[in-house]
Formats: sequence, C-alpha cells, structure tokens
Amino acid sequence: MIIVLRPEATEQQINHIIEKVKKLGLTPHVSKGTERTIIGVIGPEDVLQITPLEVFPGVERVMPVLAPYKLVSREFRQEDSVIDLGKGVKLGSKKLVVMAGPCAIENLEILEEIAGQVKKAGATVLRGGAFKPRTSPYAFQGLGEEGLKMLKKVGDELGLVTISEVMDTRDVGLVAKYVDVLQIGCRNMQNFNLLKEVGMTKKPVLLKRGLSSTIKELLMSAEYILSGGNFNVILCERGIRTFEDSTRNTLDISAVPVIKQLSHLPVIVDPSHAAGKWGLVAPLSKAAVAVGADGLIIEVHTSPEDATSDGAQSLVPENFSSLMGELKTLAKVLGKEI
Amino acid sequence: MIIVLRPEATEQQINHIIEKVKKLGLTPHVSKGTERTIIGVIGPEDVLQITPLEVFPGVERVMPVLAPYKLVSREFRQEDSVIDLGKGVKLGSKKLVVMAGPCAIENLEILEEIAGQVKKAGATVLRGGAFKPRTSPYAFQGLGEEGLKMLKKVGDELGLVTISEVMDTRDVGLVAKYVDVLQIGCRNMQNFNLLKEVGMTKKPVLLKRGLSSTIKELLMSAEYILSGGNFNVILCERGIRTFEDSTRNTLDISAVPVIKQLSHLPVIVDPSHAAGKWGLVAPLSKAAVAVGADGLIIEVHTSPEDATSDGAQSLVPENFSSLMGELKTLAKVLGKEI
Amino acid sequence: MIIVLRPEATEQQINHIIEKVKKLGLTPHVSKGTERTIIGVIGPEDVLQITPLEVFPGVERVMPVLAPYKLVSREFRQEDSVIDLGKGVKLGSKKLVVMAGPCAIENLEILEEIAGQVKKAGATVLRGGAFKPRTSPYAFQGLGEEGLKMLKKVGDELGLVTISEVMDTRDVGLVAKYVDVLQIGCRNMQNFNLLKEVGMTKKPVLLKRGLSSTIKELLMSAEYILSGGNFNVILCERGIRTFEDSTRNTLDISAVPVIKQLSHLPVIVDPSHAAGKWGLVAPLSKAAVAVGADGLIIEVHTSPEDATSDGAQSLVPENFSSLMGELKTLAKVLGKEI
Amino acid sequence: MIIVLRPEATEQQINHIIEKVKKLGLTPHVSKGTERTIIGVIGPEDVLQITPLEVFPGVERVMPVLAPYKLVSREFRQEDSVIDLGKGVKLGSKKLVVMAGPCAIENLEILEEIAGQVKKAGATVLRGGAFKPRTSPYAFQGLGEEGLKMLKKVGDELGLVTISEVMDTRDVGLVAKYVDVLQIGCRNMQNFNLLKEVGMTKKPVLLKRGLSSTIKELLMSAEYILSGGNFNVILCERGIRTFEDSTRNTLDISAVPVIKQLSHLPVIVDPSHAAGKWGLVAPLSKAAVAVGADGLIIEVHTSPEDATSDGAQSLVPENFSSLMGELKTLAKVLGKEI
Repeated sequence: MIIVLRPEATEQQINHIIEKVKKLGLTPHVSKGTERTIIGVIGPEDVLQITPLEVFPGVERVMPVLAPYKLVSREFRQEDSVIDLGKGVKLGSKKLVVMAGPCAIENLEILEEIAGQVKKAGATVLRGGAFKPRTSPYAFQGLGEEGLKMLKKVGDELGLVTISEVMDTRDVGLVAKYVDVLQIGCRNMQNFNLLKEVGMTKKPVLLKRGLSSTIKELLMSAEYILSGGNFNVILCERGIRTFEDSTRNTLDISAVPVIKQLSHLPVIVDPSHAAGKWGLVAPLSKAAVAVGADGLIIEVHTSPEDATSDGAQSLVPENFSSLMGELKTLAKVLGKEI
Repeated sequence: MIIVLRPEATEQQINHIIEKVKKLGLTPHVSKGTERTIIGVIGPEDVLQITPLEVFPGVERVMPVLAPYKLVSREFRQEDSVIDLGKGVKLGSKKLVVMAGPCAIENLEILEEIAGQVKKAGATVLRGGAFKPRTSPYAFQGLGEEGLKMLKKVGDELGLVTISEVMDTRDVGLVAKYVDVLQIGCRNMQNFNLLKEVGMTKKPVLLKRGLSSTIKELLMSAEYILSGGNFNVILCERGIRTFEDSTRNTLDISAVPVIKQLSHLPVIVDPSHAAGKWGLVAPLSKAAVAVGADGLIIEVHTSPEDATSDGAQSLVPENFSSLMGELKTLAKVLGKEI
Repeated sequence: MIIVLRPEATEQQINHIIEKVKKLGLTPHVSKGTERTIIGVIGPEDVLQITPLEVFPGVERVMPVLAPYKLVSREFRQEDSVIDLGKGVKLGSKKLVVMAGPCAIENLEILEEIAGQVKKAGATVLRGGAFKPRTSPYAFQGLGEEGLKMLKKVGDELGLVTISEVMDTRDVGLVAKYVDVLQIGCRNMQNFNLLKEVGMTKKPVLLKRGLSSTIKELLMSAEYILSGGNFNVILCERGIRTFEDSTRNTLDISAVPVIKQLSHLPVIVDPSHAAGKWGLVAPLSKAAVAVGADGLIIEVHTSPEDATSDGAQSLVPENFSSLMGELKTLAKVLGKEI
Repeated sequence: MIIVLRPEATEQQINHIIEKVKKLGLTPHVSKGTERTIIGVIGPEDVLQITPLEVFPGVERVMPVLAPYKLVSREFRQEDSVIDLGKGVKLGSKKLVVMAGPCAIENLEILEEIAGQVKKAGATVLRGGAFKPRTSPYAFQGLGEEGLKMLKKVGDELGLVTISEVMDTRDVGLVAKYVDVLQIGCRNMQNFNLLKEVGMTKKPVLLKRGLSSTIKELLMSAEYILSGGNFNVILCERGIRTFEDSTRNTLDISAVPVIKQLSHLPVIVDPSHAAGKWGLVAPLSKAAVAVGADGLIIEVHTSPEDATSDGAQSLVPENFSSLMGELKTLAKVLGKEI
C-alpha cells in the first residue's frame, strides 16, 4: 500500500501515520520527493484495508498495491481450474461447454421439446429458470419447485446437466436438491449472504457478473464462495450497463482474457442477455469462442412469440443448430472442440 | 404501446400482428406512413409487456408508452406521501429529516457518544449498520443481532428513530423487531424476494437506488414493496456508477426532482456514500436541500481514524453540527425547516 | 414521430398541436386510449426534428420513429459498400484489411523498419501519426509535415496504403496531399467542421467512434461526410468509456454487427486503443474477425520501450506476425481471407 | 511514480528498470515486500509519463503520484482566480454571474427581446450561438458572422457581456472580434488545436466539460489554454453521459467542489444542457448555487415553441425571472450575492 502525503504535510503528521502503521505490525518505507513524501507499506495489506488512512491528517491519497482477492487469483493457483458439472461434463478444458434452453420453464412439454433439440445440436447443459428475477412485480415470476422438478426430469431423461437460478438464501437447499449447477444471477452478484450460502454447498456455481460490477468486484464475489469452501465456481460475462442503447447491455468481451490473466477460474459468455436481440447472438457467440471463453449460455425457445420471458433474445432451434455447426468449425482452428 | 414495422413488412405480417393484438383483448390502430407502418395499441399495456412483439416477423421496434409502475406513480396519488417513522418523526413534509450515525455499529459506548452528538445537532434518526454488505469476505461483517440491540437501546434512551440495513430475507423479522425503519441497501435494490418480504411488514422502508439502476428501475423496485401492501417507502439517491473516478460514485442530484415529478414517494439523499470523501459531504448536503430533497442520511463518527467501515467518508460531530447550522438557514429560505 | 400526451391534456392543447403539425405539412393521426391520447405523425420527420414539440402544453414525450440518418443507412443502399483505398487494396469485401504501424511517426529509420515487418506479416495499410492528439500539452505532439513526408516515402517504397490522422480543418489539404486515407480520431468524431472538410475531399476517411458516442451518433457523423459528397467512409470501433477500469476502454464488440444491420458502410476494429495493453490485442483481434469486422488497425513498434506514444499497447513485430498467422486460419473458416 | 513489479520479476529485470530510471535523471527507491517489489521514483514525473514503463519485462503496473496538470492546479496558485469579463463583470468572486439567452441566435428582434428580459431579471452576460454544433448535418447550423454582429450590437446596446461558441480554429479571430467571452463546447473539449488557438488570444474562455470527460481531463484541457499564455479560463460543468435516460445528461454536481479543491479556476454550471428539460432547470440551478458554483449559464427563449434549437430546455422569461428571485435569496444566506 502506498500512502501519498499532501505537499504541506508536517513532520508531526508523518510521524503519526508511521506510528499507526507500525502499531498494525507493518513496515513503513518513507521516500521524500521534491514535491511530496510517500510512504510505502510492506506487509499484508488486509490489515490496512480496514484502516481508513485517508482520514489521517496530511494524507492525500492511499493506493493499494496488492489485489484484494486471494483464493481466486492466478497467483494462488497457476493452472486453469476445471469444474466437474457431473454427467461427464467438465468445464474449463479444451472442450467448450454450451448451455442452452428457455429463459423460463413454462411446462414439461415445451421443456422436453427444447431440451431434445439443443441436445441434438450439441449442448450438454440444459438451462431453465424456475425462480425468475423480474423488474416488475406484475410479470411472470416462474414456476418455482414445480419448474425445478420438470428440469430434473428432463435432465435425467436426456443425460443433460441442469442449471437454474437461485435468488433467495432460503431456497439454496431446494434448488440444490434438483439441479446440477446453481446459478447466481447478475442482480445477486453482491448478495453476499447468498454467496456465503452457495459457498457452503459443494455444487458448481455459475456466477454472473453484475450489470455495473467491475471485474475486480466479480472476483471478490467469487472469493466469497471459495472462502466458504466451494471452489467449483464458473464466472459468466453477460454484458455491462453503459450509455449505448442499441443493445440491451454492452458485452465486455475483453473481460474474458482479463479474467484469465487474473484468475484460474473458467469464464463463459452469455450473448443472449448481453445483446437482448436474437439477431446478435450468433456473431457474439463466435466472438466469445474466438476470444477464449470456456463456454456459452444461450437462450433457445421453440416458439419465441409465445415465450413468457425474454422471447426477443431467444434463438429458435434451427438457428441454434446452425450456430453450433459454425462454432464447432471455429473451435477446431482455435485448438478447442465442442 | 407503439409497434414500428420494418419498411419491407408484408401485409401478411401486419395482419399476423393485428390478430395477436386483438387476441389479447386490445385495440390496434394502424397508421401507414410514406416510409413505414406503425401500429398503436390502445388498452392496458401490461398484457403486451409479457408478449415479445419484437420477435414477430416484420417488427422493427416496440416502444412502450405508459410507465410500468402504477402504485408509486404521481397519477395514482397526486399529493406527496408523508411517511410516519414513529417517535413523532414524519418524512415527506415541510420538515426535513436528517438521519445520522456511524456506518457500522462497533460497540455501545461509541454508539451512545455519536448518537448524543447527532441528536444535539438536530438529527432525529439514528443510523447504524449491524449487517454490513462488504465487497470482501475478509472485511468486518457487522455485529448482527448484538448490534441491533445496541441500536434499539440507544434509540429508546435518546428518543431517536432508528434505521438499519437488512440484507437477507431470513433476517427481516429479526431486524424489524429492533429497528424503526428497515433499510434496503443499493446492492439489494433488485433483490426481489427481499423487497417482497419487507413489503409484507408495515415498517417504513428506506430503499436505496442501485449503483447502476435507472430511476425507472428504482420506482419498479418500490412498486414491489407497495404491491405487497406496504406503502411506507422512502427512496434514497446515493450516487450512481459512472466513468468519473474523483468521487466514489456520481451523485445524480437531478434524480430528486425527476422522482418528485413521477412519484408521490419522498426522496432523501446520501451524500456520504455518493462522494466517499467527508470533505464533499457539506456541499453535497446543501445541494440536496436546495434541489428539494426531503431529508439526508449522513455518516458521522467521533473517531473516523478508528472506524471499522467507511471512515474516509464520515464527518466528525463538530463538522456535522456546523453543517446542520448551515442547512437550517438554507431550509428556511426554501420554505422548509429542519 | 409519436407524440404522447399527458393524461390531463385538454382538447384545446391537443388541437393546438394538431394545427402545428398540419402547418408543417404533415398528417396527424390521433389515437385516444383509456389513459392517454397519442398523436402519430406521418411524413418526413426532419421537419419535426427541429420543432421542439416537447414544450407544447399537454405533451409528455416525443418519440422519433425513423432513424435520423439517410445516406449511411442500409435502406439507402442495400449492398455492402466497398471502399477503394488505392494501391490495389479494397476494404469491405471478403478480403479483410489489416492496418498496422507505430502510434506516432518518430523517424524515417524506425518507420521503415516497422513498415517492412508489418508488410511481411501481411498488413496492406501502414498507419502512423504525424499530428497527435495528446491529453497533455507537455506531451510529444507529433512531427507534423515532416512525419507525413516520411510516411509517404515509406508507403511508396513498399507499396503500402498509408493512413494518418488529421485534427484541424486547416490541415486537411496538407494531410490529403501525402496520405491515402484520412483518419478522424475519436476526439474529433463530433468536430463537425472537420467532418464537412473531409467530406469535400474524395479521399477515403476512417472515422473512429467517440469514447462516449452512441452508434447512432457515429452514423450521424458519417452522414456529415457522405452528405458532403464523399461516400468513401470506413467506420472504426475502438472502445467506449465505461466504469470498468481493467482495460483502457471497453471494446463494444456488438457494435460491429449492429452497424452492419443499420448501415452499408464497412467497419473495422482497433483493439490496441480499446484495450490499452498489448497482451489483450491478440484475443480481441480474433474476436473482431469472428464477429464480422472488415478489418483491423493495430499498433506495432519494434521497440515499445522507446516509443514516444502508446508503447504499452504496441505489439512487437514477432507477436504481430504470429497473430496474423492465427487470423488467416480464422478468416478462412469464416469464409473470409486476409 | 510507483512501479509495481510482478511477483516473479527477476533481479535482472529490476536492474534493467532501475538503470532506465537513472538514465532519465531520476532517483529510484526500491522497497522489497513479502509478495512483491515496488520502485518509487523521485523527481519530475513528466519525464516518466512519456516512457512506457508498463512494457518493461517484470512490470505489473505503473501508478502516477503527481497530478499531470500544473498551471491550473491549486498548488500553483492558492487563491481563487477571478476572471474579468469586461463591462464591469468579474467571475469567481462573491458575486455570482448568470449568463442567459437563447441557444441559437435567430434574428435581431428576438435576440433584443430576450436580452432585455434577461437583463431585467439580473443576468449580466448574454449567451447566443452563431456557430452551432449539430448532431445532424440537416439541422440549422447557425447564422455565422451575421449572428455574431447581432450579438455584439445587442450586447453593446444593453451593456451586457457577450459569449458565443467557437468551433473551428479558422474562426477564432472572427468570433474574438465580436464577442467578449469565447465558449468551447463540450464536443471540442479535446480539440487540442482549438484550445491552443484560444490560448493565444487574451479573451476569457468558457471551457465546457466533455460528455464523457473526467475532471482530470477537463483540467488538462484547461492546461492547454493556460500553457498558451491565456489564464482567463472559466470551467463549466454541463452534465456527463451515463446510463440514466430520464435526463439528457447527468449533472455531476460534485464536480464543482472537487474542481475547487484541485484548481484555482472558477466553475459555473449549465443546468439547461444537463437536464435537457426546462422543468428541471430551476431546482438544478438552486443546487448549483448551494454547492458553491461561481455562476450559471441558462437558456432562455421568449417562444420555446418556435426556437430553432433546444427549445425543450429553454425557460420563458417569466420563469427565468422568478428563478433569479429565488437564487438571490439563496445566494445571500450562503454569503454570496447575484
């Protein structure tokens, strides 16, 4: 940690800070420049992070040097983490994982039909929401446990890994009972109690980046889960909120290589929610594979016109199948496979 | 709702949409322009909002006309809502309400000292966090129920209304047992289950705007609480996330008059979290009062150097007291009082 | 254009608006809904765009229906525009165009060395700045005309198309004299006089998207150039400003397919400025090709440690060459070539 | 400047950096921590700012310590700068300055009428655009020199200081001939040649913050003008671009106190362009005065319905006059006057 002092900082103020730093068991290094004095602090920054050095008289700015996350960092683990999702599917290796399915589970029949189609096209994970986070209290909120049962049934029948969102600390046990992978949605990325709760299960967790969360914050949220004992975390870039309004969100494609530099955790991309328009899902999926993502999560619906949620961004099975074909060719020249 | 068709939309496509609209019990008005056809839909938009008209062939864009919130809207209730916080304090009237106290409750002694000071300066509500949403799992997470007990004790002793954050659906009953006003923090603004849960109590709720939430989304989240039966909602502008990094967040001061045009609910401002620096709290507080806010929530600590959370943005009691003096004069010329 | 009236709008107010619309030579269509009245206006929206209908009593909101650009739109020209850059290089077709070179031209020797290397790797356009837009008045501002002469000399020797930025209306003639393609930098995307000036030349223009410009605004700026008579415009996505600070800017990769839907103009991507870090240039370049960009502009320097500008984001020739190899393979499976 | 090394940096890499720093005439201070080594560099940072230390092997991050601006900084000049606008008007002192007038100059008659009204209400500066930066090439572009002549005539008749925007380096002499204060619009905040050009005049310059410019960048742009020899610079906060769309831009009210801490230059606020809606101009003006701004620039038009530009955000004279009354009372209790 670097403490930059104001030009007018007095000797007394400098000594007051030095004493505080020493009292915390750390070693201060003082460098007096022509314009101002700087104090470098050597030792574990955690201790300092909870001390508001900015309020000490004479201090202008405090600049942390070390990253605040530990377990998720590349320095903690050099090699890429590979997450076992069950049913023979592993995420984070040469083989890309494609998750597909409807935004919300509507009924067993439609789910079975969609599941059959996405499996045929090469998806190995079936997505489907039973608890839906909806901006409006008047919108369809999901089928709840009924939906989870359908998802489990179809997943078991077809040998597909299942994933569904959990929104409430009280539902973690329930959702974990039925699905293979727990999804934390973007609005709950900083629902810290929920993170702690899924950290206590051993289930793989897909953690979606918050709409306005920095990559550092995403990693800190993952750190909550890992520090609870669950290292089976998959990160997901799904677009951030910017001023641009021609897409629902702005897919931050750079997040994939940036995260891969900082962390050992795998990263997938959700082009459907990023774009909000089905017509952009194919090009964005290809970009995601090219940039190095470990997988994709894509909304597919047999009848988007009748979907209860996010119809506008759902691919019909034919388009999904044709996209999968293109992705397979693409993956191959990149040294991957699907 | 306005449906804008593509220039190349066929008669068949247009008829397909018209039939769908009619099937939903609504009335379509077709206007054929020189370049494209537009369909205006008359009737309750709710029905349409869950129908993804964007995916119908021939549709270019769908533009909603009506606001998606109802109970929170100015049209639902013309006059300003006044929220009774108990202990004789009402929020939303000519008398501005100032909430003050430490970010986190640390121990009884410090809390009593701070509470005494902020009361003397004119605050009528005591804030203090017992459950703290912290970006890092390694940071101080709050005293929990112990902290709530301290808050209640001090509030009762001094006749101050108390407010504290609830972060978990499982804790709503617990927090409601001890405090007068439930706070929903910015990270939980779209934790819809939590909103539903506080909507089932009758306690006043302070709903903070999410870091990247639009005003419309803030109102939709309030709608969750009101639609649950609890009309005692206070909104709080606390800064949004932008590219500017000289302040922690960017206080969106315009949100106050914008919300007052759209809704009957009262709005207060949190200058401490918006700025992240105590030196900006005084000018931003004055701006908030001048722009028409119904109150303020300000972090005050007797010893910011030792605060376990947010020390950098806390005012010392002397500065808070001097600010309150300025605000009183300001309020008077604006036809308000403190 | 759709005019949404307030619920309380009077008959008199509605008639006042209708008269105004008719006086402008347009046809109003009035739809009276249960909650409010809407007026659809048929006819050229241009006339209305300069009339501030929002200030008419009774008006709540005005929603434009048609895009404000014409010549750049897909509707104006269905097929993709192919821009002839000279020296046998065409941009916008199956053959992707890679522009490469140093951020700033420093001296003839270095430029020749870099140019030789990028040509060998497959680039067909040589970039190099002679007029540099620098945030600080104390930073190196470029060699000016001397630099342009060097660029022309090297371009002619090696048969490379040349591109360089023009920042001042007074310099358009000068820059056009020496280079093949005029570049308008992101800070000048809305320097409308500069746009008019390059619109009066017949030189190809590379128009970079402004840091906080919407795609619609980028197209409007291109419209300035086309409406001046110069249809040789290439658009460039180079990252937008967001809250994320792990990259210099956020590459808006979705902009490529979005622009291709809206416009016939070709689009290239600048991964160097978007990322600000050379380590991200390769993955972002691959994503750009996969998403459908017509080309790339990449900073290359033989000795980034000594570069006078943007060294941190420059590739060394070996890395550039290896990236070009990967891009060629990638292009092939996407039906393109380099 | 602080150079943070990677954990795996070798002795050789560290020595390579130390040599480079010494060769630049600076003194490196090496601190070896438990996890990584840090090099603090003492001496003028300018030299380092042009050296891309990030690309040196072993370097993880480079953190500047000193602000990149000099002449505009509070450290360069402790006391507030007061800018003499001529005609007895000074900006930056206890007396607040209100600039008012139409967005665009339309004809002499309307301008005279508006000018008379704003003068009567207490404005001392008349604004009016003759060169208009318009997003669309098809929109009204201003009357040019004709408009400037009208502005001069009316300003002279009524004894009002005049201000108008200059957009082109070629027009600086022309605009300076007619008006008292040169305005640099937000789109030209980083038109560095234009900044240099107005820096060579002695005219007061109003420099508007760019839509997506940080405060630091605004100060750097002002530095261009001061470093050219013209210290008569007034800064203007006019809203930044964010995701919030209920206002045209988001007024960054905190910018005023932040700038006052960092710089000696005066700051005014433009509530009209920030909000884009006349109904928000009054509350935002009051907030601006309360937060400590040195003045305001407000759009006023006698007939907003017929304005050729920005009618939606213009106040009618009666509302402007009534606002001025409120601002006078407010200024008084804040120790200022209008």
